Amino acid sequence: MTTVGILGGGQLARMMALSGAPLGLRFLVLDTVGDACAGQFAPMVVGDYTDQSALAEFAARVDVATFDFENVPAESAQWLTARVPVFPNPRALATAQDRLAEKTLFREQGIPVPPFAAIDTREQLQAAVAEIGTPCILKTRRLGYDGKGQFRIKSPDDVDAAWGALGAQAAKVGLILEGFVAFQRELSVIAVRGRDGEFRAWPLTENWHVDGVLSASLAPAQVDDALRDTALAHARRLAEALDYVGVFALELFCRDGELLANEMAPRVHNSGHWTIEGSETSQFQNHLRAVLGMPLGDTRMVGHACMLNWLGEMPDPEPVLREAGGHWHDYGKAPREGRKVGHATLRADSRQELAEALRRIGDALDRRAQVAPVIERLG
Amino acid sequence: MTTVGILGGGQLARMMALSGAPLGLRFLVLDTVGDACAGQFAPMVVGDYTDQSALAEFAARVDVATFDFENVPAESAQWLTARVPVFPNPRALATAQDRLAEKTLFREQGIPVPPFAAIDTREQLQAAVAEIGTPCILKTRRLGYDGKGQFRIKSPDDVDAAWGALGAQAAKVGLILEGFVAFQRELSVIAVRGRDGEFRAWPLTENWHVDGVLSASLAPAQVDDALRDTALAHARRLAEALDYVGVFALELFCRDGELLANEMAPRVHNSGHWTIEGSETSQFQNHLRAVLGMPLGDTRMVGHACMLNWLGEMPDPEPVLREAGGHWHDYGKAPREGRKVGHATLRADSRQELAEALRRIGDALDRRAQVAPVIERLG
Repeated sequence: MTTVGILGGGQLARMMALSGAPLGLRFLVLDTVGDACAGQFAPMVVGDYTDQSALAEFAARVDVATFDFENVPAESAQWLTARVPVFPNPRALATAQDRLAEKTLFREQGIPVPPFAAIDTREQLQAAVAEIGTPCILKTRRLGYDGKGQFRIKSPDDVDAAWGALGAQAAKVGLILEGFVAFQRELSVIAVRGRDGEFRAWPLTENWHVDGVLSASLAPAQVDDALRDTALAHARRLAEALDYVGVFALELFCRDGELLANEMAPRVHNSGHWTIEGSETSQFQNHLRAVLGMPLGDTRMVGHACMLNWLGEMPDPEPVLREAGGHWHDYGKAPREGRKVGHATLRADSRQELAEALRRIGDALDRRAQVAPVIERLG
Repeated sequence: MTTVGILGGGQLARMMALSGAPLGLRFLVLDTVGDACAGQFAPMVVGDYTDQSALAEFAARVDVATFDFENVPAESAQWLTARVPVFPNPRALATAQDRLAEKTLFREQGIPVPPFAAIDTREQLQAAVAEIGTPCILKTRRLGYDGKGQFRIKSPDDVDAAWGALGAQAAKVGLILEGFVAFQRELSVIAVRGRDGEFRAWPLTENWHVDGVLSASLAPAQVDDALRDTALAHARRLAEALDYVGVFALELFCRDGELLANEMAPRVHNSGHWTIEGSETSQFQNHLRAVLGMPLGDTRMVGHACMLNWLGEMPDPEPVLREAGGHWHDYGKAPREGRKVGHATLRADSRQELAEALRRIGDALDRRAQVAPVIERLG
């Protein structure tokens, strides 16, 4: 009997446990709060990610450890690594935690990135804004998540306001200035790399964000083969450079047919939730297969899929459940403004059927704005 | 938050909980043993099905109750019904528990059945064997499961041996003599009926048993439309007669193009496990949707599917995990001779691909005999 430990007990851990159960696995979740939603289906250790007694209990009860949450302190991941196999490795985690290290790695690997500069002082900010040009975005290097810790600089006059908002973070978590990319599309590669180096990716996903938070994903993204191959090659190079094991997401901007890397997530990813019903093997099961050294599952799609995120509170499930290809995912969380509480995946055999289902869902749930860009893309 | 109570904590309860979690449901399992495998993913109450304090605790903590195990005493189901909604209803359960009541209902509903007779004495047995003819099978009316409690009578000379083996059961659980059906094929209908009477069925499944225990299932069964329609009509009539709510299986023999009902299972069924990956909605999720009065999910297939049962102990998972359409289900049970410990489902887009995958699995796991009849049927 193998027990997989998961640091973080949110919906990613929950879906990982549900998807790993058929492999005969057991799970143990470490989270800071006792009512973390993964705890409804897996035993928990409650404690801070820096609490060594919690970490020690966790390590003693698991055979391998992985993450639902990438901002686990790198020292905790390192501490665990001395006691139990940890995948992905702490270096991959540390790189992904730091926007500067991440972008530097992208560049080293020949993966195009928007212009960026490390910012330690107000003077550096002013100089970098002049060099990179506006609009640009000042971000914290660490602990950014879903658009938090960011300030958009529209003109050089905004430098003071930006420094006022985030300057105090410079000494704590570091800052980075990034050129704003006037992209036409946002894409993500969801990929998996095994312990033996085998690499597989799902079909490319197109994503739509609202206020920095994922709103909808469509797979397969409607892109030409060359663009897809470039995106997959980027993801593969990145994974190899980090000796990555498990599932990760590489978020890309597409501007005038050119791909620019935005960031990587060293874990299963919201834009890969559609793989549960939309592909032969879900990102959750393949992450576990990778982490455990099992053969990776097939990543081919079954039809076309669209995922809609539910934020704040769950809508009425009925319109989705009434759709032939409608699948409901309620994470069992209490409602809270902006919180990711669930999602729906619509699966269909053709783009047209998928567009029709989305139109019905948008109408029934009064969420026309959420489905509109996806329907437009489906043509 | 809705909590579904499940009487019985085996693999059916386990897969029900895993499949119902995305609906935002919680589960509570009642089982006689604390290490029941559903307990790895759901909280449990441990107690006998007749233990009123266990039943009371269970009832107090759930919003609706259903079954993983059909041989829960009818009085316990009745007792629960006074406290919490119970689906399927106790009458359906009681009918399915009693081979005589079940076959009588089949006949009343115009569903052809093999000849049968109630047996209370040795003299009745002798007379019934003379009337029905040999071969025939003497069975206990209740608590039969996977071929246990049965005696095959090959000639009238076997009457004494049959009575010697099972006669003592006549006064306890009753006996029934059934004519032996020299069938060419065994089929099952997996169907679901909602609280509102809506009826849906998955494509017909063909099954192969070894020593009375399911060995392999293939869907869709290769049958003509008329036979399929007859089978579905039988299932529908049966469900309506019982005011059945939830998933059930109707097992049928096919002899010279004629269907004869063997038995019904008032629960999700081993021959429907392929629906997890092989159809848009699994039998497990649709059972929960029915029981909770939610819209029923689509039962269409995604390609062709074959389920292989693993008995006793789990084989090496690797050959199945290496198949593009291979899905592994380890129930997390300790090995024990004859015990259902897991299954694999192979999914493919064509019959030929499915046959090829089965041949590889049969070779790799040295289980050629298990896959041979399925491969032969696939042509």
